[in-house]
Amino acid sequence: MSNLTWSETAPGVWTATVGEPEDFTPLSLLKAQPALAALEELPRPDFPLDPAALVADRAHGRTVVRFPLDDEEAIFGLGLQFLKVNHRGRTRTLRVNSDPIQDTGETHAPVPFYVSSRGYGVLVNTARIVTICCGSTLRKDARRPPPIKDRNTDADWPATPTSDVLEIVVPGGGAELLLFAGPAMLDVVRRYNLFCGGGALPPRWGLGFWHRVPTTFDADQALAEAREFRERDFPCDVIGLEPGWHTASYPTSYEWSPQRFPRPAEFVAEMRAEGFRINLWENPYVSPRARIHGSLEPLSGSHTVWGGLAPDYSLPAAQEILAAQHEEDHIAIGVSGYKLDECDGSELTGCSWMFPAHAQFPSGHDGEQMRQVYGLLLQQITEGPFRKHNRRTYGLVRASTAGASALPYVLYSDLYDHRQFVRALCNAGFSGLLWTPEIRAAGSAEEWVRRMQVVCFSPLAMLNAWANATKPWSFPEVEGIIRDCLRLRMRLLPYFYSAFARYHFDGTPPFRAMALEMGLEAAETDDQWMAGDSLLVAPMFAGQTSREVVLPPGDWHDFDTGERCEGGRTVRVFPGLDQIPLFVRAGGIIPMMPALPHAPRAGACGEAGEQVPLTVRHYGNVSGSFRLYDDDGETYDYERGEYVWRLIEVTVAADGSRQGALAPAPDGSPCSYGEVTWEFLG
Amino acid sequence: MSNLTWSETAPGVWTATVGEPEDFTPLSLLKAQPALAALEELPRPDFPLDPAALVADRAHGRTVVRFPLDDEEAIFGLGLQFLKVNHRGRTRTLRVNSDPIQDTGETHAPVPFYVSSRGYGVLVNTARIVTICCGSTLRKDARRPPPIKDRNTDADWPATPTSDVLEIVVPGGGAELLLFAGPAMLDVVRRYNLFCGGGALPPRWGLGFWHRVPTTFDADQALAEAREFRERDFPCDVIGLEPGWHTASYPTSYEWSPQRFPRPAEFVAEMRAEGFRINLWENPYVSPRARIHGSLEPLSGSHTVWGGLAPDYSLPAAQEILAAQHEEDHIAIGVSGYKLDECDGSELTGCSWMFPAHAQFPSGHDGEQMRQVYGLLLQQITEGPFRKHNRRTYGLVRASTAGASALPYVLYSDLYDHRQFVRALCNAGFSGLLWTPEIRAAGSAEEWVRRMQVVCFSPLAMLNAWANATKPWSFPEVEGIIRDCLRLRMRLLPYFYSAFARYHFDGTPPFRAMALEMGLEAAETDDQWMAGDSLLVAPMFAGQTSREVVLPPGDWHDFDTGERCEGGRTVRVFPGLDQIPLFVRAGGIIPMMPALPHAPRAGACGEAGEQVPLTVRHYGNVSGSFRLYDDDGETYDYERGEYVWRLIEVTVAADGSRQGALAPAPDGSPCSYGEVTWEFLG
Repeated sequence: MSNLTWSETAPGVWTATVGEPEDFTPLSLLKAQPALAALEELPRPDFPLDPAALVADRAHGRTVVRFPLDDEEAIFGLGLQFLKVNHRGRTRTLRVNSDPIQDTGETHAPVPFYVSSRGYGVLVNTARIVTICCGSTLRKDARRPPPIKDRNTDADWPATPTSDVLEIVVPGGGAELLLFAGPAMLDVVRRYNLFCGGGALPPRWGLGFWHRVPTTFDADQALAEAREFRERDFPCDVIGLEPGWHTASYPTSYEWSPQRFPRPAEFVAEMRAEGFRINLWENPYVSPRARIHGSLEPLSGSHTVWGGLAPDYSLPAAQEILAAQHEEDHIAIGVSGYKLDECDGSELTGCSWMFPAHAQFPSGHDGEQMRQVYGLLLQQITEGPFRKHNRRTYGLVRASTAGASALPYVLYSDLYDHRQFVRALCNAGFSGLLWTPEIRAAGSAEEWVRRMQVVCFSPLAMLNAWANATKPWSFPEVEGIIRDCLRLRMRLLPYFYSAFARYHFDGTPPFRAMALEMGLEAAETDDQWMAGDSLLVAPMFAGQTSREVVLPPGDWHDFDTGERCEGGRTVRVFPGLDQIPLFVRAGGIIPMMPALPHAPRAGACGEAGEQVPLTVRHYGNVSGSFRLYDDDGETYDYERGEYVWRLIEVTVAADGSRQGALAPAPDGSPCSYGEVTWEFLG
Repeated sequence: MSNLTWSETAPGVWTATVGEPEDFTPLSLLKAQPALAALEELPRPDFPLDPAALVADRAHGRTVVRFPLDDEEAIFGLGLQFLKVNHRGRTRTLRVNSDPIQDTGETHAPVPFYVSSRGYGVLVNTARIVTICCGSTLRKDARRPPPIKDRNTDADWPATPTSDVLEIVVPGGGAELLLFAGPAMLDVVRRYNLFCGGGALPPRWGLGFWHRVPTTFDADQALAEAREFRERDFPCDVIGLEPGWHTASYPTSYEWSPQRFPRPAEFVAEMRAEGFRINLWENPYVSPRARIHGSLEPLSGSHTVWGGLAPDYSLPAAQEILAAQHEEDHIAIGVSGYKLDECDGSELTGCSWMFPAHAQFPSGHDGEQMRQVYGLLLQQITEGPFRKHNRRTYGLVRASTAGASALPYVLYSDLYDHRQFVRALCNAGFSGLLWTPEIRAAGSAEEWVRRMQVVCFSPLAMLNAWANATKPWSFPEVEGIIRDCLRLRMRLLPYFYSAFARYHFDGTPPFRAMALEMGLEAAETDDQWMAGDSLLVAPMFAGQTSREVVLPPGDWHDFDTGERCEGGRTVRVFPGLDQIPLFVRAGGIIPMMPALPHAPRAGACGEAGEQVPLTVRHYGNVSGSFRLYDDDGETYDYERGEYVWRLIEVTVAADGSRQGALAPAPDGSPCSYGEVTWEFLG
């Protein structure tokens, strides 16, 4: 019989507590408020499992909770996983680690939240390292043990039999569980995101192109490199500075190098005038040369990293010191955001560093807990001053965990396997995470194109040239293809921005795995994804001349030509190097804008803001609609109602003719779009 | 100030207890008696460290003990490590795991015992997973913090700075530590081995050549394959049967397949008559088809492996069931030993299996503890019936840990990197472990030779053909070289057997890293080793035509030619494919015998035993001596005094002439050697 008591804490979200959980958890430190009104609008199913079948044990300093699994049940999520989409049959140790080169579940952003193909999800709200055995443990008391095979005679003897139970193992004296209902998997994910406060809505410029300059570039070099984007007609919104902008880095000072950046305010303003935002790299370990070192020293852990303090950022006093210095030195002069590096830790040969699990912090937390949530804390602290200035930020972070949906940060990695990068893009959307498959270098022009195509259909389109000094035009023979690719990203900005607004307001991840579209049928599909509601992206990898694409039921259309393709099956495509296979659902509507050099300035109708013309594409002979989101693109005013959803409708008449309509923006509401052109394809 | 109290528990061995350690430990379950008389004969230093500098903390369910490190201090040991010899600057998580492909410390046989270059060793006596940070953690309160570098400007910025403290982290409420004095590192290792009861002394036949036949071979095939060794004049003492000998395997029955082995007693006897011993593969997971399944079921853990029981082998009742079945079905009919496979567990993609850490066992122990000591328990249980029959065994095992010195088992791996295999051979000797770099397959005749040369200078010389059906003569173009290599192994049997006797009686590992010979100077030397006291083995790897050899001070001689080579430096050698670079210390004595097809039958002088002629080689112009060990080679009677050490002395006269003398065997003592021939080289 069950010894768990579930109580509904928000619509379709139940909690149960085992023993005495620690109170230092991702959800407690984020203090995120569930988006209750949006949660009310989701379907409202009953408790999705038989509660009597859910059992908890405690022994040897561990809490173990068991969930029965159906034979066909697939398990998704668990954070930024690089090696599998469906975790059924695998054990996942959800430890923060920058080198997830073995398929154990360790990763930059492990999230103890999984989504079952049966339409429910489970979150373990803890800062400890959780292990989830997703049908990988065989219990002697199994209801349906797998058949026993003889390795000598049965060719299908499995090295890893799959069992009928999922076991969650939490270290310590207890655990808090949250169960999220569906009925569909996408509803589970939405519910999770809304429970965490809704997904992040980046500023509009955050969806433009990003470029990070080499690590020791100075202000003049950075400005020159930025201008080359304009000269060559490559869009770019953000220039990222790498460690060299500091007076000291590894450990870091957070202060501008007087040699390389003698007049930082002027530098930021000059870049801004030319349409570039500045993003600053940093890591969390405080150099003795930083002026905040003295005040952080007593607020830091027992161990240093590279000789830099590891501040106890669970302490408000430490948070305030970092936030105040960042506000004064960076944010007040216009810096747009951060790249929060090295907050995950590494145990690789030749590159091993992090405070240990047994480190002690003044708050009483240990190194295990702090490492699991360090990335989360840094996202929260650095967003703070931007909120104070009512300026949205969008940045990068290398570690995260549960509850991060609302934080405007995108994960990245020093790993570089292209298929793993695509798999991570599929996986991140299950867990309230954003991920960039950033491009750095390539062994060939072909690889350069294939990587850039993926980058441009991701949450953050970035070339990171910190080490390689690459530029989008580094392979001259494909400069035109790359330019078109970046320009397509800019043209899709209205579509992507609306998808992110959905993420915020109804929890729908803007980029998501095919399993969220098709369920079990796509449980193993890890090389194509949905971008927004209508676009299916099936990228090519270097060396391929063709690939298979899994199309969900219904008709689909080629994005460029509108050519119809019957869905509900797998098709093979033979795209040229300049093409990334893109399919649009019949009835799909894609609002687009011109390929501006950078995102348009914000503004409401009749005010100083810039208006851009809109091209609305509609595909196929099925009527459709699209909710076009608009706001000022820059501030947090949307949280106070300053936004508008404008309905786009295309109606297909009996004779096949099509008619489009865009609802007008109400007086005084944001109004980024001017003249509308309709394009009917397919 | 220190909060540890050290008390001397054996000569040169001190213990300290922190908090309340669990009582289920490797040393407690082995019940090994320290070899006190031999310990008394070691040098007797004072407590080798400043006890005031050794500090313990307890927090968050962990015990942390800190040892200061000197700047130059190197840290060796920690079990069967594949990736480093000197662990200084690295964190080692000493978890049993069959796939140590990342340099984290996990391995088949992690041992929480390290040896410092300053001449002391520390053992943590626990069945929990210990983490040892060997100067890899930087404490804020460091006495000598490493200099802080700037990654932007300092080319020598270290990704992994090295600190001045070693931190031992033990999960749970306490820890028992043992500190072993030197003064030399080799004394530390000897003291550890003697404290664990002395090193294992294999039967003489165990040092012959071993061959494992393909997995589904039947009795006739195994016999035919064995006979081919005799026909081709390749020595062989042991034929190993792989899973197919069982009625069911993976999980296993431990019962002879009536199809493949219809008359096992006759099979074993027939093989024995032709000079072959039989070794049986098994794994610990009990098939429902095993007749012991029913009685073991209530004595087993909560989880199965491949559907087989994981018995709680810490329970005497479970131990007795396995031992009795093995005695009756195998040992009583003459089986010589076991290969204890799969007792380590795996978390690799595509091949993940083991009971989980949270599994519960009837004894109250959990899966973490049981996994750490499962290999140790299986070695102990399976040796039992052999002791009862007063017949020595020698076998293979894939998992081990602390305290294993006296157990007659040799570790092996499914990994196959040749350099890692050699490094493991260097490392095993620090931790009371034996290791075979077994040969299975090769990409070329050259690799085949180079691997076989290493195999023949290891604790167990074996070709494991279970999957590849290889034979020593699989590369016909090098058949002669391989034959000579195996025959050299046989010729060195008196030398190796005496080295193993030293392991038993004075704790000196028969195969050991250069650091145990040369100290810090060879701290990173991981591709050559000492075999016995006088032989230095510097193997070649496929692709090499020459290599560097680090020679300790003094003169050294080529094993074959006697050519002199000045030591105390690094020399480059250019051996042919048929040569493994072997150097003998000046004054070194190597007793050898003819290359018999298998080890000689046991016997004392005047009894039925076989006597073999002895060839004694002496190298160089320095007088020397050697203690030649002899006993019946088969029984445990040596533990009751039935053995003899015979002194060999070679005296170099002023005119350079040499005279050799072998002390006679006392009446009634073992006497395996007949006529003596002297060979003076160099």
